[in-house]
This record gives sequence, structure tokens and C-alpha cells, in this order.
Amino acid sequence: MASEIERKFLVRDASWQDAIERSEAIQQGYLAQTDRATIRVRVMGERGLITVKGVTNGITRDEYEYPIPVEEARAMLETLSVSSVIEKIRYQVRVGTHRWEIDVFAGENSGLILAEIELEREDAPFERPSWLGEEVSYDPRYFNANLARRPFRLWPVASRSS
Amino acid sequence: MASEIERKFLVRDASWQDAIERSEAIQQGYLAQTDRATIRVRVMGERGLITVKGVTNGITRDEYEYPIPVEEARAMLETLSVSSVIEKIRYQVRVGTHRWEIDVFAGENSGLILAEIELEREDAPFERPSWLGEEVSYDPRYFNANLARRPFRLWPVASRSS
Repeated sequence: MASEIERKFLVRDASWQDAIERSEAIQQGYLAQTDRATIRVRVMGERGLITVKGVTNGITRDEYEYPIPVEEARAMLETLSVSSVIEKIRYQVRVGTHRWEIDVFAGENSGLILAEIELEREDAPFERPSWLGEEVSYDPRYFNANLARRPFRLWPVASRSS
Repeated sequence: MASEIERKFLVRDASWQDAIERSEAIQQGYLAQTDRATIRVRVMGERGLITVKGVTNGITRDEYEYPIPVEEARAMLETLSVSSVIEKIRYQVRVGTHRWEIDVFAGENSGLILAEIELEREDAPFERPSWLGEEVSYDPRYFNANLARRPFRLWPVASRSS
């Protein structure tokens, strides 16, 4: 079990694209969401994953993740997911000593781009690149499980942070 | 992914105990139950398992099962389970060419004993041992996910099959 501390931000411009190390297509859906846990299935390139995330405690949450056969992950996404499947391209971008993950959403969430950084402590310092926009770590609308149910394209334009 | 076909019966007497091949303690709980799937975590002896079961279609259901570290299974049972944890001893009993699993429940389900047989087809023939009682395959009260929420000891005595 890992304890995951992530901070999540909007992106101000496209200059992060100059520092892309690699990218990967991700499809993910949710088998369930209870008041204690979220169960996610993900296809990342040719890998399958099942992930149990405990409820968020601030921006820290328990995470249990297991590799599974990709064809089983695909079948579960298709038949057992309770919400629509999220599609995105994840780009790895290095800034100083940290690696950022930039998620460029597609499908019903297209138009949305989120940058995430994983930290060892909630208050760990990190370098803020010029393309970094507003922090949305605490805004539940940007949780992927919520984006699967209420995708970005359905949000009123005025309510989108920018 | 396996497709699971199980028939489930009550047990008439204790004569099955003469044919025990082995036994194992099981603890299991449920992370979630949706209209499409049930997500179960199980500790079997020193093994951990996470299992996603699709909704039952008659007595056939899709099942995706993955081994996980036992200490992670224990932690999830303790912190993320949405219902009480089921405790039982599972005995393997061979009858003719089939192996039966006899679950002797403990805790809040003590008093309940269920015999299960896994078949290749819903109508596959099998030998009926003398200790076999009434079939409860289609009675949802006996589904383990339901026993976790409404345990046997809370059932009115008159409503128990016998």
C-alpha cells in the first residue's frame, strides 16, 4: 500500500510541451465509489491496472494498485464500469528535480488539461514552472471519478477555473 | 476472466465430515456492490485476493480474481469494507468426480453451513451425497455479499430454510 500525495493544477499555456519526456494513452473507468473507497480500472498502453483508493484525507489517500491482464481491464471497462470511460494522454515532463504528469483529456472531457505532481509530504517544496496555472487539488469537480460522471464539456463555461 | 457456475445447498447432517480433504480459514469483506459488479477482498490462510464479480446471470457470473499481498488484503478489510467481515472455515470434500466446498460460517453467521459445487455448465449432472439438503442457489439471502449485510443470526428462525 502506498500513500499518495498529489497536488493538481490547471495549465496556463503550452510551453510545457518543450520538456516532454514521454507520453502514454490512458483509458480509465470506475467500478464503484463508496464513502470509503473508489475502485478504478485503467488501461495504460498495453498494461492493465486495478486500483483501490481510500477516501481522500486532505490531499493524502491510501492507494492499493495491482497489475492485471490488459484484456481483462478492457473487458471490465466495457461491461462493469458505473460511469463513462475517461480518455486522456498523459505526458511526463521534468521540471527541476520533480516529474510532472500532464493529462490532456479527450472525448467528453476534451479541453481540459491538468498537471499533477506527486510529493512526499503535503507541504514539500517544489519549483513552479511558468506554465503552471491555478491549483485545483481541493476542487472535487476535477477528481477523475467525478469527471467520469460529470465531464468537463458539460460544465457551464463561467464555472471553469482559468 | 473465468465464468463461474456454482450451485449452493444447505447441509442436512454432519456426515460430510468423514470425507474432508483439507480446510482453510477465510475472511472476506466487500469494498463495494453496484448494479453491475461486486468487489470482494479475501484472506485465505496466508493468501490475499481481490475479486471483481459481474452481476449474476442466473447462476453464471463473470469473475476476475487477482492475488494480492495478504497484509494489504487485511488492511483493506479493516479500513475500506462497506459491510461486516464474513468469517468461515472452508472444507474441501470429494464426492465421486466432483469436489464440494463446505463453508462453516462463524461470527454473526454462525449456525449456517453451505455446500457449493462448481460446474462446467448450468445443467451439468453430479452425484448428490446423502448429506445434501435444500438448494439455495437462487435465494439472494444466502449470497455472501448479503450475508455480510444481513447475517444469518439476525434472520427470523421461521424464515430459515431447512
